[in-house]
Amino acid sequence: MAPRPVIIDTDPGQDDAFAILLALAAPELEVLALTTVAGNMGLAQTTDNARRIVELAGRGEVPVYAGSARPLLRDPRPVPEIHGETGIDGWDWVPARQGAAPGHAVDYLVETLLGHPEKITLIVLGPQTNIALALRRAPDIAERIDQIVFMGGGFFEGGNMSPAAEYNILVDPEAARIVLNSGVPVTAVPLDCTHATPAPVNWSAALAAHGSEVMRACAGMMEFFERYGNAKYGTASRPLHDAVAVAALLWPELFTGRLCPVDVECAGELTTGMTVVDWLRQTGKKDNCTWLNGCTDPGEVYRRMESALARLGR
Amino acid sequence: MAPRPVIIDTDPGQDDAFAILLALAAPELEVLALTTVAGNMGLAQTTDNARRIVELAGRGEVPVYAGSARPLLRDPRPVPEIHGETGIDGWDWVPARQGAAPGHAVDYLVETLLGHPEKITLIVLGPQTNIALALRRAPDIAERIDQIVFMGGGFFEGGNMSPAAEYNILVDPEAARIVLNSGVPVTAVPLDCTHATPAPVNWSAALAAHGSEVMRACAGMMEFFERYGNAKYGTASRPLHDAVAVAALLWPELFTGRLCPVDVECAGELTTGMTVVDWLRQTGKKDNCTWLNGCTDPGEVYRRMESALARLGR
Amino acid sequence: MAPRPVIIDTDPGQDDAFAILLALAAPELEVLALTTVAGNMGLAQTTDNARRIVELAGRGEVPVYAGSARPLLRDPRPVPEIHGETGIDGWDWVPARQGAAPGHAVDYLVETLLGHPEKITLIVLGPQTNIALALRRAPDIAERIDQIVFMGGGFFEGGNMSPAAEYNILVDPEAARIVLNSGVPVTAVPLDCTHATPAPVNWSAALAAHGSEVMRACAGMMEFFERYGNAKYGTASRPLHDAVAVAALLWPELFTGRLCPVDVECAGELTTGMTVVDWLRQTGKKDNCTWLNGCTDPGEVYRRMESALARLGR
Amino acid sequence: MAPRPVIIDTDPGQDDAFAILLALAAPELEVLALTTVAGNMGLAQTTDNARRIVELAGRGEVPVYAGSARPLLRDPRPVPEIHGETGIDGWDWVPARQGAAPGHAVDYLVETLLGHPEKITLIVLGPQTNIALALRRAPDIAERIDQIVFMGGGFFEGGNMSPAAEYNILVDPEAARIVLNSGVPVTAVPLDCTHATPAPVNWSAALAAHGSEVMRACAGMMEFFERYGNAKYGTASRPLHDAVAVAALLWPELFTGRLCPVDVECAGELTTGMTVVDWLRQTGKKDNCTWLNGCTDPGEVYRRMESALARLGR
Repeated sequence: MAPRPVIIDTDPGQDDAFAILLALAAPELEVLALTTVAGNMGLAQTTDNARRIVELAGRGEVPVYAGSARPLLRDPRPVPEIHGETGIDGWDWVPARQGAAPGHAVDYLVETLLGHPEKITLIVLGPQTNIALALRRAPDIAERIDQIVFMGGGFFEGGNMSPAAEYNILVDPEAARIVLNSGVPVTAVPLDCTHATPAPVNWSAALAAHGSEVMRACAGMMEFFERYGNAKYGTASRPLHDAVAVAALLWPELFTGRLCPVDVECAGELTTGMTVVDWLRQTGKKDNCTWLNGCTDPGEVYRRMESALARLGR
Repeated sequence: MAPRPVIIDTDPGQDDAFAILLALAAPELEVLALTTVAGNMGLAQTTDNARRIVELAGRGEVPVYAGSARPLLRDPRPVPEIHGETGIDGWDWVPARQGAAPGHAVDYLVETLLGHPEKITLIVLGPQTNIALALRRAPDIAERIDQIVFMGGGFFEGGNMSPAAEYNILVDPEAARIVLNSGVPVTAVPLDCTHATPAPVNWSAALAAHGSEVMRACAGMMEFFERYGNAKYGTASRPLHDAVAVAALLWPELFTGRLCPVDVECAGELTTGMTVVDWLRQTGKKDNCTWLNGCTDPGEVYRRMESALARLGR
Repeated sequence: MAPRPVIIDTDPGQDDAFAILLALAAPELEVLALTTVAGNMGLAQTTDNARRIVELAGRGEVPVYAGSARPLLRDPRPVPEIHGETGIDGWDWVPARQGAAPGHAVDYLVETLLGHPEKITLIVLGPQTNIALALRRAPDIAERIDQIVFMGGGFFEGGNMSPAAEYNILVDPEAARIVLNSGVPVTAVPLDCTHATPAPVNWSAALAAHGSEVMRACAGMMEFFERYGNAKYGTASRPLHDAVAVAALLWPELFTGRLCPVDVECAGELTTGMTVVDWLRQTGKKDNCTWLNGCTDPGEVYRRMESALARLGR
Repeated sequence: MAPRPVIIDTDPGQDDAFAILLALAAPELEVLALTTVAGNMGLAQTTDNARRIVELAGRGEVPVYAGSARPLLRDPRPVPEIHGETGIDGWDWVPARQGAAPGHAVDYLVETLLGHPEKITLIVLGPQTNIALALRRAPDIAERIDQIVFMGGGFFEGGNMSPAAEYNILVDPEAARIVLNSGVPVTAVPLDCTHATPAPVNWSAALAAHGSEVMRACAGMMEFFERYGNAKYGTASRPLHDAVAVAALLWPELFTGRLCPVDVECAGELTTGMTVVDWLRQTGKKDNCTWLNGCTDPGEVYRRMESALARLGR
């Protein structure tokens, strides 16, 4: 079967890095480009990070388009306290050889979606600003998107930035609302799913043992992540949120979920940025999102991820 | 040890009936009075139901004070579709011999709390309007309340009236906000806890076997509840929400939970009436509520409940 | 004609003092009692101030009942920067000879409204907490209230605490919402009306010239008010907001307004506490409030007020 | 002096038509293009209307770019009941000879602003969706905008779609919020200003007397507007809201206003879409908008408008 064409919208982030590398390694996917957005770090940094990651993978030909420097309505909220100064701390990165491709990510998305012979899948790993802007700028792209898989939100698990809100949604709740109500088939990979998919304990050591540069970089980033997890949650076993989203696209048989109505609270005093999941269909609204809430075999997810990453680069 | 003085604020409801009967049966509690509120049914009906329940228990001397006929700000929302026409359908009730005690529930609460030699525990089984009015009318009662145990809310389980809101809180979210921010020690028994505490399958049959009038009434109400559960959820095993709240007061060793900051969303578009639980203490707010989220032995809860109920009345 | 029985709910405040004195002086009104609320100052201070004012007027027999020490949902917001340390700065007050009457203002309101042979008019000069609590505690008082005249809100003029909100409503917007939606006939005397009713320039001097103790006290408070107006607004001519409310009750022929739908925003990010006036009847809601928006002869208002005050006390 | 380059963003509408014609007629302005948006009518209709208007003026070379078919977050709200079936009812329009220029309005805005040697003034006459999308898509355009003059909002006058909200802002409040907080100098021409600038009574007759095709078209649209005004407000004298915005740009000496902080309520229950004007600078926020609140000589405004229109076309 021909590989499925995808565009990855991202704000790396160590877990974005794993997600991108996994997508580049997967023969089932053809990564057309990366588009970047302000999120974990500012736009210049996330764009540079994206270049470093494709080049590390030996896939420098994949273009990176810089997108939105800030959310639709709200102020940016970079979180260097989580991801380190560069956002992808944990590896001694060489500078990117190439810069961003010319043109704006939103234009690239619109033109590519309208021009490509096949429908395209969007993998969205940060605040959803670019996708929302593209959908409003050119509503006819909706029918050219095969599906949107995004990492973000949380319902049964609550949030990670406030009791009710997860980072990617909280940063641009209005953008997420536009995406969820766009009519495009959406699969959400929320905290409910990623918390059920923790990496193996001390996975960094297993990765390092492979010896390739990609694997040593992954090991370094994983170690950084594990240290943060140890310090904050008292556990070395942490989910690689964004990578789980790519895993869910590649291996849906390892995950559980339900198609149901999902929306985003934009007006609450305590709950703004919350993804409100109508799991029991109490609202009478239309089903619009496949909400993943579990993983049947986290070990298998990371085994497959490790095999895929091991095929990459030098 | 002397029994603990309690007042039960209630809007019966079949599960309120079990809660009240359990409290009347428990030697650890001295039920000073019942106060009623509009909720599952209108005030006249909940007041009459409360009278029927104490009289069924052979405890007609326990006074019932009628309270608020509507929530602080919002419109009443009776739910006869859940509880039947009377609110306590399932038993052929005889009319109450006595009416409500003279005076308003809020006045009774204020006077009793200020006048009683001991601190009093409030068991709150419906919308929290009466308690909120009493706290605002006479703030000095706060230090005369030993604790408030309420059935209401839900966080990890979501809600039962909307994706985010449970009935008792949704009906009067502002009242719940007043109670939670009153400084009084509060224990919440939310859906997170009650759903973890389902009654045994076909418990109605076990109850009926006891043969007393109280047990036959309980069996009838339980059967009504089981039929509703079968129809809506496809299971004969349903939690008796309000009764679990009294169980949690009597047998805290059978439940799990955490003291943490809890507040109520009153301004959301999708989330009004949601209890927002800061389980991970991300907000920096003060701990104000012990949030019960589980039950270690539901079977034991209902065994003890059955034994207690069997001691009651005729 | 027999005088109209009124109860004044108040948080004095210099302009409350004028309002109370005017009501005491007016043969058209029979002041049954004052009830106090936290607002401009804390409850103890507003209660003491109310006592001092009735005693200054030589009307120490009028009882003062202390009410709510805080708003329904929100935190108190005293404003000594406007009214001075005592709230009625500007006169060398003698201590009150008597304290508050026994019992809570809300109980007094309920019992008096239900027990009095005639319907009673409520003059509400501060946050509307007491009235809201009474209406929820005993809904049947609604039909025993002849009308509610309140000072508060502002629509065409905007607010005085935020661009959209006036002090009395902002302090307890939920209470005002309860009052406006209670079904009781309501007349609002908002900033739209009071700003159109400024006191004469240097009115304090005219008052002082009368020589009586009451008039000298009024002159002192007016001078304090004029100094504040000069400093903040660059004008010696300031409206006595609360006194205008009593004037509007006494002399409706001097004011303009319209019966239309009025409600209070309780959930806005920028507009909470705003009185939203449907002047053009665009919402289809029921008319519930006579909204005064102008004064046809401010000079006449203050001439009549001066004559009335001159009849008072020593 | 060289004419000032402007782009007009519009959703015609009869009053948009007057605004566009006035701008085309004014030697002080060089109209680079029109960009269209869904608003009074759907996008296809407003785009076609814009073409008809430039062609009527004999200025068919001015390109029209079609933009956003819907608001950022909310549903479209066309109002044929106000503007008639075409949006510019009142004249027997000939079909447009030309269609929209190729490319999207937002792209045109971004490219033109970044490429033009001079800063450009934006005249915004409808919902502000296009401008908001352009500002988020390419934040660096902000410093290439000389100023934004928009018709919209209302504070002292209230709104025309709800007690608090005016049409253009209510349709896309989030877009207006983006524009007002963009750092670009903004002049608002709200209902507060346009209601103070009514057209002369029976102005349509005066326009018709000129005899040119443009003037007869204007007379026809004006007559349609007058009939609507007569029916709804009982007056033949109605403001041409959007045309007043162009007048305020051309002849600022005829208008009054104040630079102060202005924002848009996006979360209110009763007030969403309200422009909140901090006229008294009570919030401590930064001044961001010149808010026009009056007109010193409405007659002169319409005399100048009439002279300008008379110079146009055939």
